[in-house]
Amino acid sequence: MTLDTMQELLSEELRDIYNAEQQLVKALPRLAAAVTTPSLQDALQDHLAETEGHVRRLEQVFEALGQKAAGKNCKGMEGLLEEGAEMTEQKGSELVRDAGIISAAQRVEHYEIAAYGCAITHARVLGFEEVADLLEQTLVEEKHADEKLSTIAEQDVNGSALHVTH
Amino acid sequence: MTLDTMQELLSEELRDIYNAEQQLVKALPRLAAAVTTPSLQDALQDHLAETEGHVRRLEQVFEALGQKAAGKNCKGMEGLLEEGAEMTEQKGSELVRDAGIISAAQRVEHYEIAAYGCAITHARVLGFEEVADLLEQTLVEEKHADEKLSTIAEQDVNGSALHVTH
Repeated sequence: MTLDTMQELLSEELRDIYNAEQQLVKALPRLAAAVTTPSLQDALQDHLAETEGHVRRLEQVFEALGQKAAGKNCKGMEGLLEEGAEMTEQKGSELVRDAGIISAAQRVEHYEIAAYGCAITHARVLGFEEVADLLEQTLVEEKHADEKLSTIAEQDVNGSALHVTH
Repeated sequence: MTLDTMQELLSEELRDIYNAEQQLVKALPRLAAAVTTPSLQDALQDHLAETEGHVRRLEQVFEALGQKAAGKNCKGMEGLLEEGAEMTEQKGSELVRDAGIISAAQRVEHYEIAAYGCAITHARVLGFEEVADLLEQTLVEEKHADEKLSTIAEQDVNGSALHVTH
């Protein structure tokens, strides 16, 4: 691969994120099915709907740039989702597993926060304000999803998981 | 694997992070060697020294918990570092490649921010204040490394990379 310009780098980053979001759309139902805490299950299901929206928003971004929407295999997300899948298969306490699935999901959110953050910076440097604004909307939702997971961990999972007897 | 208690989950997370930091110690010299912007090269080299300190700090954490320091293959970091390695091999503009390497490095920092954040929360729930304080020191350094990369991107890389002619 050759990257001659910042616009080529931005396109490459968008293809990476597009594939990452598509991987996440496939993985979230499995994560949601594996948890037992109702608020966590709701949050993961809500985030699935949001993530489907992020895929569509990226298609708008590709259109704004006059490019075909296309992904390229995102190895970063692949590794993160493998960790998530491993956590869903853990035996033992269901609540402890829920706490572990939150950890895995927060790693995924942070991947996206970093990825969108960089893509937004590059879009702004290139003067692509419309693209940057679209990506910014998703970034806000990713940060919010991450904070929501922290709140659920604190309020509904960690304390109860601590008192699990085995 | 069986996870019966929050303490087992914390141990599992620490093994994941310990391996992740060790992978990063091996990868950072290659990333530093691939960049051409002096401030970026300095930052990556400084972060190598810091990362070696994080490995030692995790050994203190294992000791405080009365556990043997041991890692387990962290697939999340593996995927992120593969992306970083791919970026170092990009042909084309050196400055655009530097911008791409910053993106890859910020994904790594965010992985660690999420991982330490969750481990700290779990350590505090368990009442392991000494462990949480040690991990917090590293978290502060990871956040600082991430911010420093953003500053370097803005001040020394993105603007210049924009004016690359090809």
